[in-house]
Amino acid sequence: MLPRMDRAILGIDLGGTFIKAAVVSPEGKLLTKCETPTHAEDGPEAVFDAIGLASEEILSSTGLANWDVAACGIGAPGPLDWRSGIVFSPANLPGWRDVPLAEILTKRLGVQCFVENDANAACYGEFWRGAGQGADNMCLLTLGTGLGGGIVVAGRLLRGPDGTAAEVGHIIVQRDGRLCGCGARGCIETYGSVTGLVRTARYGLEAGEASVLRESCDGDWGALTGAMVSEAAEEGDSFAREVIRTTGEWLGLGIANLINLLNPEKVVLAGGMTKAGEMLLEPIRETAARIAFDVPAARAEIVMAGLGEDAGVIGAAGCAWERFSRGC
Amino acid sequence: MLPRMDRAILGIDLGGTFIKAAVVSPEGKLLTKCETPTHAEDGPEAVFDAIGLASEEILSSTGLANWDVAACGIGAPGPLDWRSGIVFSPANLPGWRDVPLAEILTKRLGVQCFVENDANAACYGEFWRGAGQGADNMCLLTLGTGLGGGIVVAGRLLRGPDGTAAEVGHIIVQRDGRLCGCGARGCIETYGSVTGLVRTARYGLEAGEASVLRESCDGDWGALTGAMVSEAAEEGDSFAREVIRTTGEWLGLGIANLINLLNPEKVVLAGGMTKAGEMLLEPIRETAARIAFDVPAARAEIVMAGLGEDAGVIGAAGCAWERFSRGC
Repeated sequence: MLPRMDRAILGIDLGGTFIKAAVVSPEGKLLTKCETPTHAEDGPEAVFDAIGLASEEILSSTGLANWDVAACGIGAPGPLDWRSGIVFSPANLPGWRDVPLAEILTKRLGVQCFVENDANAACYGEFWRGAGQGADNMCLLTLGTGLGGGIVVAGRLLRGPDGTAAEVGHIIVQRDGRLCGCGARGCIETYGSVTGLVRTARYGLEAGEASVLRESCDGDWGALTGAMVSEAAEEGDSFAREVIRTTGEWLGLGIANLINLLNPEKVVLAGGMTKAGEMLLEPIRETAARIAFDVPAARAEIVMAGLGEDAGVIGAAGCAWERFSRGC
Repeated sequence: MLPRMDRAILGIDLGGTFIKAAVVSPEGKLLTKCETPTHAEDGPEAVFDAIGLASEEILSSTGLANWDVAACGIGAPGPLDWRSGIVFSPANLPGWRDVPLAEILTKRLGVQCFVENDANAACYGEFWRGAGQGADNMCLLTLGTGLGGGIVVAGRLLRGPDGTAAEVGHIIVQRDGRLCGCGARGCIETYGSVTGLVRTARYGLEAGEASVLRESCDGDWGALTGAMVSEAAEEGDSFAREVIRTTGEWLGLGIANLINLLNPEKVVLAGGMTKAGEMLLEPIRETAARIAFDVPAARAEIVMAGLGEDAGVIGAAGCAWERFSRGC
C-alpha cells in the first residue's frame, strides 16, 4: 500500500486497443499504473465498463477510495469537445456518436471527470513532468504513422474555441506537394511522419536508387516499413541514411515555422520515429537553426520526449488537476 | 475642450518618418490625435523631444494634464524588449542602440510608459477596437512591402519569451522557394506581400505573358509596382488579375496554416495591398476554406481591418492600459 496523501488524481489514456490508467499525485508523480484491453469492438458500454474496472482496480491496489481522488482526466481520441466532455465519433471507437463521456464517467466513478484530446494530454504530460519541464511555451510533435502533437502557450494548452488548434502535422510546407490524408497537399505530415519517411524511401527506390532495402521488401514497395529503413540506416546503407536525413530536414523546416510563430523554449519530439535518435535529430536541429530567426532559434531547445508511454496518463491527470483547480 | 474623464491613455506610434500620438479612453475610443515628423536622422534625443512635444500638445489640446493620464503606450519598431522597454537597433531609427525608451519617456512625460513592438500594437488595436472585436483569438496580417502582423491567443498578445513570436510573414510554405530577406527560402512574405506580388508579375512578364504592364513599365521590370498591377487588374488586364489571384491563393495557404495551428475566430487583413479588395479577398477565402480543416475553417472569419492608420496608436494605448491594469 502507498503512503496516504491528501488527494490523488486519476489519469486515463483511452486508446482504440488499450486503456491505460494511472494514479498520479498533484505534483505529477506517477504512483501506479495498469493496462487493460479497450474492447472497442463491443461498443461504448463495454468501454465504460472497462474504464470503470481499471479505475477500481488501480485505486484498490493503492489503498485509495474514490473520495481520495480529486479528479479524473481522460485522454480520448478526437473529435471531441473538451469543455463539455462529449466525444463525437472517433475512427477507432466504433459505435461512438456524441458520447457525453465526462458526464457518464463522473457518475460511474463518483469522481469529477474531465475529457481532453489525447494528443493534447500527451503534450501536457511532457510539459508538466517530462522533457518540457521548465518551459512556459512548448510544442510537442509525435512522429508516428501520422504527425500529431500539441502546443502550450504561456503555461496553458492552446486549444482554440473549437478545441481544434495545434494541428502541427497539417502545416503546409510545400504548395501542391504530397497528397495528405486530410485532403490538402504538402502538409508536413506527408514528409515528416513514419508514413512520410516510407514514402520518401519508396519514391527513391522507384527512381532506381541502390539500397539493401530493395532486397528487404523483395521489390514490393508496399511492404516497406519505417523499421526497415531505420535498420538499414543503422547498418550503414547510405540511401536509407539519406532518407532519414531528408525526413529530418523536412521536420526541421516545419519546426522552424513553429519557432518563428510561437517562440517556444522547448520543442519536444515523441513517437516511434524518435528511435532513429541522433541520425534524425541532427538534421532537424541543423535545419531549424539555419532557417528560423536567430533569437528564437537559439532559445528553442529541440529535445526527445521524457515520459515515453506514460505521457498520456500523466498528462490526462495533469489537465484534470489544472481544470479542477481552476474550476473549469 | 473634451469632457473630463477619470483617466485617459496616451498612444504613440513611433515610425521612421512620422510620430503619431493619440488620446484614447479606457474603453478604446480615440478622442484626438496628431502627427509630427520623427526627425529620426537627428538621432535619439531629437526623437524623444518630438515625442515629448507631441504628447504635450495633444494633452493640452484636450485640456488634460499628465496626472489625468493613466499610462502611455509606445508602438516602436523592433527588435526590442517589451518587458523592459529597451529598443535595440531598429533599421529605420539610425543611432539607436539599446535605448531604454520606456524609462526615458516615463521620466520625460511623467506618465508610466510601456513599449510594444509596432506590429503587435497594431494587432492589439484591431483586436480591441477594430475588426477583431468579439474574438478571443485573432491573427493580423499586414500586407505591405513586407508581411507583418500579430497573434492574439485567449485574449492576450502572443509574444513568447523573447518577444519574437507571431512572425506570420516567415512561415515557410515552399521548401527551396523564393529567397526571402530573412535568409530563408519560401517564406509566405516572398509570395504574399506587395513585393511578392510584384515578383510574381515580373516573373510572368519575363516569361512572355501578354499584359498592359509591359507598356506601363516600358520593359523595365524593376520599375513595376503593386499599384501598377492593381490598376491594370481593375482595368481588366487578365494577366494582372491572375497575379492578384495567385497572390491571394498563396495568402490563403498561409492563412490555412494559421487556422490549423491556432483555430482563431478572426483573421484580419491590413496594409496597402488590401486596397485590391474582393479581387484579393475572394481567392484568399476560397483557398483557406478548401485547405484548412472544416471546423476551424468555418469558424475563422477572414476580414479587412477596421481602424486603418489608427490601429497603431489605439493598440499602443490598449496594450499600455492592459499592462497598467495588470501591473506588468
